[in-house]
Amino acid sequence: MTQPGNVTQLQMSMCLMLDTFEKYAKTDGDPNSLSKSEVKTLLEKEMPGMISGAKDQKAVDDLFKALDFDGNGVMDFEEFMVVVAALTCAFRGPYLTCRNLSYCWGPILQK
Amino acid sequence: MTQPGNVTQLQMSMCLMLDTFEKYAKTDGDPNSLSKSEVKTLLEKEMPGMISGAKDQKAVDDLFKALDFDGNGVMDFEEFMVVVAALTCAFRGPYLTCRNLSYCWGPILQK
Repeated sequence: MTQPGNVTQLQMSMCLMLDTFEKYAKTDGDPNSLSKSEVKTLLEKEMPGMISGAKDQKAVDDLFKALDFDGNGVMDFEEFMVVVAALTCAFRGPYLTCRNLSYCWGPILQK
Repeated sequence: MTQPGNVTQLQMSMCLMLDTFEKYAKTDGDPNSLSKSEVKTLLEKEMPGMISGAKDQKAVDDLFKALDFDGNGVMDFEEFMVVVAALTCAFRGPYLTCRNLSYCWGPILQK
């Protein structure tokens, strides 16, 4: 984050999403897309508890397959934004209650 | 924002979007949806320059009509997230260049 002042709350959220994608996308290969291992690292670091509870790699593979809408094996920024939007919608209810996503968040891939 | 620590960058972005929606949605009527005037205020305050350049109300009306996907006259949180996702995708290119959305942002509704 290298944001000077005069950035609104909504713009700040957009900057954070752009920076998050870039941070993980640049770790291997194309900086404009997330490989499967980059998606896994991103979810482990940014959404702790979401996939850490997954018992095996298959759950992560299934998740990635579902998120890679155009089936090219990587997740581009548009696909990333669809995921973030869906997750934010899913956690609006719990957030309205407890006001803290890090507490609301449960291991949704535990089986 | 009433976020204690242990919130990741991506979770923070989600909190900011949730708080932004709530802040404007609660100003009149249903706190779970944005009326047309709430959308206008939200865009004026959070995306300065985006609609402030619009010469007349018709541009804002057309925008709202396009964003109200289910045609019920208000924007719910899911519709709001689609808009935020689309705007973030649109401004990724300029952001990668200048690193500041408040500088990148242009009055896209000026005609």
